[in-house]
Amino acid sequence: MQRCQEEYKKEQGEKGEQEERGESHYVFQKEKFFDGIRTQHGYVRVLPNFSELSRLLSGISIYRLAVLNLNPQAFFQPHHLDADLVLYIAQGKGTFGIVNSETRHSHDVRQGDILRIRSGSIYYLANKDNNEKLTIVQLAVPTSRPGQFREFLAVGKNSYLSQFSKDVQEAAFNLRPEEVQKLFEPQQQQQQQGAIIKASEQQIRSIGGSSSHHGGESQRPFNLLKKRPTESNRHGKLIRADGNDFQPLRDLDLAVSVVNITQRSMFGPRYSTQSYEIAVVTQGDGTVEIICPHLASQKRESEQEQGREGEQEEGEQQQYERVRSRVTEGTAIVFPPGHPAVEIASSDKNLQVVRFEIRAEGNQQVFLAGPNSPWRRMEDGAKELAFGMKAREVDQRLDRQKETAFVPGPEERERERPLYSVLNFFDF
Amino acid sequence: MQRCQEEYKKEQGEKGEQEERGESHYVFQKEKFFDGIRTQHGYVRVLPNFSELSRLLSGISIYRLAVLNLNPQAFFQPHHLDADLVLYIAQGKGTFGIVNSETRHSHDVRQGDILRIRSGSIYYLANKDNNEKLTIVQLAVPTSRPGQFREFLAVGKNSYLSQFSKDVQEAAFNLRPEEVQKLFEPQQQQQQQGAIIKASEQQIRSIGGSSSHHGGESQRPFNLLKKRPTESNRHGKLIRADGNDFQPLRDLDLAVSVVNITQRSMFGPRYSTQSYEIAVVTQGDGTVEIICPHLASQKRESEQEQGREGEQEEGEQQQYERVRSRVTEGTAIVFPPGHPAVEIASSDKNLQVVRFEIRAEGNQQVFLAGPNSPWRRMEDGAKELAFGMKAREVDQRLDRQKETAFVPGPEERERERPLYSVLNFFDF
Amino acid sequence: MQRCQEEYKKEQGEKGEQEERGESHYVFQKEKFFDGIRTQHGYVRVLPNFSELSRLLSGISIYRLAVLNLNPQAFFQPHHLDADLVLYIAQGKGTFGIVNSETRHSHDVRQGDILRIRSGSIYYLANKDNNEKLTIVQLAVPTSRPGQFREFLAVGKNSYLSQFSKDVQEAAFNLRPEEVQKLFEPQQQQQQQGAIIKASEQQIRSIGGSSSHHGGESQRPFNLLKKRPTESNRHGKLIRADGNDFQPLRDLDLAVSVVNITQRSMFGPRYSTQSYEIAVVTQGDGTVEIICPHLASQKRESEQEQGREGEQEEGEQQQYERVRSRVTEGTAIVFPPGHPAVEIASSDKNLQVVRFEIRAEGNQQVFLAGPNSPWRRMEDGAKELAFGMKAREVDQRLDRQKETAFVPGPEERERERPLYSVLNFFDF
Repeated sequence: MQRCQEEYKKEQGEKGEQEERGESHYVFQKEKFFDGIRTQHGYVRVLPNFSELSRLLSGISIYRLAVLNLNPQAFFQPHHLDADLVLYIAQGKGTFGIVNSETRHSHDVRQGDILRIRSGSIYYLANKDNNEKLTIVQLAVPTSRPGQFREFLAVGKNSYLSQFSKDVQEAAFNLRPEEVQKLFEPQQQQQQQGAIIKASEQQIRSIGGSSSHHGGESQRPFNLLKKRPTESNRHGKLIRADGNDFQPLRDLDLAVSVVNITQRSMFGPRYSTQSYEIAVVTQGDGTVEIICPHLASQKRESEQEQGREGEQEEGEQQQYERVRSRVTEGTAIVFPPGHPAVEIASSDKNLQVVRFEIRAEGNQQVFLAGPNSPWRRMEDGAKELAFGMKAREVDQRLDRQKETAFVPGPEERERERPLYSVLNFFDF
Repeated sequence: MQRCQEEYKKEQGEKGEQEERGESHYVFQKEKFFDGIRTQHGYVRVLPNFSELSRLLSGISIYRLAVLNLNPQAFFQPHHLDADLVLYIAQGKGTFGIVNSETRHSHDVRQGDILRIRSGSIYYLANKDNNEKLTIVQLAVPTSRPGQFREFLAVGKNSYLSQFSKDVQEAAFNLRPEEVQKLFEPQQQQQQQGAIIKASEQQIRSIGGSSSHHGGESQRPFNLLKKRPTESNRHGKLIRADGNDFQPLRDLDLAVSVVNITQRSMFGPRYSTQSYEIAVVTQGDGTVEIICPHLASQKRESEQEQGREGEQEEGEQQQYERVRSRVTEGTAIVFPPGHPAVEIASSDKNLQVVRFEIRAEGNQQVFLAGPNSPWRRMEDGAKELAFGMKAREVDQRLDRQKETAFVPGPEERERERPLYSVLNFFDF
Repeated sequence: MQRCQEEYKKEQGEKGEQEERGESHYVFQKEKFFDGIRTQHGYVRVLPNFSELSRLLSGISIYRLAVLNLNPQAFFQPHHLDADLVLYIAQGKGTFGIVNSETRHSHDVRQGDILRIRSGSIYYLANKDNNEKLTIVQLAVPTSRPGQFREFLAVGKNSYLSQFSKDVQEAAFNLRPEEVQKLFEPQQQQQQQGAIIKASEQQIRSIGGSSSHHGGESQRPFNLLKKRPTESNRHGKLIRADGNDFQPLRDLDLAVSVVNITQRSMFGPRYSTQSYEIAVVTQGDGTVEIICPHLASQKRESEQEQGREGEQEEGEQQQYERVRSRVTEGTAIVFPPGHPAVEIASSDKNLQVVRFEIRAEGNQQVFLAGPNSPWRRMEDGAKELAFGMKAREVDQRLDRQKETAFVPGPEERERERPLYSVLNFFDF
């Protein structure tokens, strides 16, 4: 595992150099994540606070993104967070146990499931499969410090309970100190491994067995992949769940969506009207472009500070900056609201992106090309004023794109160039 | 236009010097606004972020204030913002077009109309009148960066679409690159003028013609001036619309109000219980006074830092600071909640102020003088304790002001001095 | 009073030195409060803004904590705040007068009452008792500046009305300037004393007499002590009121609770799942321990900055920091969500703590020991994995604590040591 990671990093480093320009604000390669927890049986990788990553991202500084990975038959020890958590099962199967004073909720989860763990809920997690890894993408909404959260591990060498004074521990459990320690800081080899350990066949089987669902505090997971896609054609597919599908998403004003882009196809150009999308590539690789006016003005300002103000004439100022970056499995991408963007799948793999939409209620996708592009709805006079040509000519050009949302990407067009050229020749 | 502006500035500068003391925190003269957009056909002037203007205003740092001005027959190109927008039509008439993938909403607006444009909505705007300017006061609630927003212009020399890589543009619209450029970056003289252009008679007439209102996403404007005033007498008038009148105001927890003060009359002293009021003078000129304890303590602190602590005795510390400033058309004024204030119209013009109330639900105006002043409601014992005289004597004095909200201002009293003196003579 | 305070401080200073370690983040001794108002008849002591106290507390920086104390027969002059206020009557009896343009609400309050004063409401307050002090714990939610608020005093030597220009005052009240001054800045000895003055027998009796409750804007107080305790045994008692009991608490998403711990008993270990608890000791003294992972990582970071990184091996890093502190009447304690904590009453006094819970809706207390501890709900396999021993053995140990929430504290155990030893001897 560790070795794979390192090889991966090396490879990324090489790619990275070609692509770095401007990407650092909205695209964060896998290496930007740090180890929250890591044992030989799994890990939690956490992206730094967004406002530390870029001052353009202060609008989402209260959120955190993390990826959890459990090896087959691994067990994540009981713990709680000072954060609300929305989880998306990106790969594999698992079983959650959530316990409180009265009841236990057990949830079997599989790819596509969305689950919420409330701040302060004590939970544990097992990958019961013998072969497949369990990968979970997590959005955290911290409750104690804005944009900062921690694991509170109840047992093991770093049990929080063992941090109370000895006499307090003794009084709390009505046990002799050595008994408390034996209970919460067990010396067995397994527990010494840390927060993620290996379970025996028998132990792992017992987990989730006798589930109890009275109390109803923890809601069963919702499977996103069962929903009908919002957009779908042979170039790709968009599926989205919001508060209407799953109550916890309403409580947190979030939506979760998956975008699946066929190889050599493109999603967009498009933007979200009001939501930030905090995204992670879960399969494949490709390229993203995001157009940003804030970056451009930031650049202008810093140039002015450095006295290079005179180099550009007023009228020729760049109003927008293009962020272009390669993305690959594990890359995080942030799409700010209103910012036009495209995602393009590579030549040999579909590109799959999981997205948490922030402030989701009322949010809409605007697709800037294709038969439903907003330009088509303008009055003739407005079309003429905007595009400086007859409305009929505008329509003729806009009509050329027949697909919505997902279209053949640049590379696909390249392959089919002769065909497109002929079409162009006939049309104009 | 430009010349008028400059002359105006000069004039203001002269006035300004007499009044500058302390005003910089809550009163912002027209010149504080910067050009967001400016062509020879119109402009958008934007007030800097409030927390940049004063650290006392960090409570409203997520809001932005702007004023839009379109010349007769000018057209504001289609664009969207990464901000929610509430607009108040201060002068003139116009037509909005708001387009999305399925529908177009057209709205004819006139003085007094309140309209909301959602973040990410693509809209354009025409002043169809041949003579009158169109002036709109706008409150923006940015969605991507707190207190920062940008225009995303779809067409013209600064089209965001032209910032995508050439092959992406090509794939998006299924057009040859030169065709995409011709469409979104037209070379005609009109479009080269920028975001606000001049329309022909015929073009302007076609806009708003074939409006379609199915879908219901964009709500028709609400005309504030049709409402019955909340307060009204011969000295002035206050009209207010909130979420009960216009649903979008509820969504954003805002209210919009207009205060019209007769020449030489005064509004107040009064304060809003919980709302910031972000205001713009839309007609006339006058004077405002705002009483602020935060400014006073800030001053004390900075004096202490400079070691001038000893100059004042403990008991003689100034608890409040008075902000006094001339205001004129285009001046922005911020009234913080709980801060007592008066607005006084000049000797020759009525003073009209448009106000956005922030956190409006449950907000109330408290008028500190007049027959309904809160002091009148106190028990006799409380009156005696507070005012140090018999309750009857307190009432006698409070009774002297017969008007509520709007009263004769200092200058009006000056003119009628002989009369007041006689009255005073008889009363006491 | 003043003298008592000073003696108290001195005493505290001595105690303080032994306990300072780490406490500065979550425990704030009485001396940390500063004088908001102080006369010989009472005072308001205010805790500095939380984010000034510790950068760990930026999550509650919009709230402020204050304690108000009125001597017998003292009267707090009419004023308003630019803050919403939730008050808990910790000791004594009092009468509030809240006035607006149409009505007066009078509220007699006594120990246990919760009351809300809205931002901008003009109110005054009398301690009508001849002997007992009136002590009120207040949580303020400022409306003009985040985490900053001020008193606006209408009368007396620091009346805000007297800060308006003379001609404005004259116009406002239709009075000659000297009459305005006589009214709002009375020269009588009483008013010169400041915001809190002494009332005569007769004056004080008249307050609250002719109460009027039409209008319904101000809600009657809710008495917390009438509620059935959430948790109760011979070691202590927890009573809690939230939005279901008292509508204003729902509006502000707060709860108010009182914890009463019998001498030598202990509350916890426990945590709140999602709420910050901002607490004040109102009776007795004792000790608190709070376990914090954020403090520990902060410490690590600052050590790294000082180049002491190499001193500890990776695996041996301290994950949690224990905050331990003596607390006494007037000490403020902040319990962050998810952070395990205990409170222990001293050997000779019950410990009473009043707590404001922030973001209260859906918040739960998790008790980490006793018959309802969450560990008891885990499946056998999970128990074995977590604790590294047979599930039966885990249960046996967890079963030793028979009490929930409130248990005998360390000192109590010490006194009964022989008994516990015998029990332990028989059990294992």
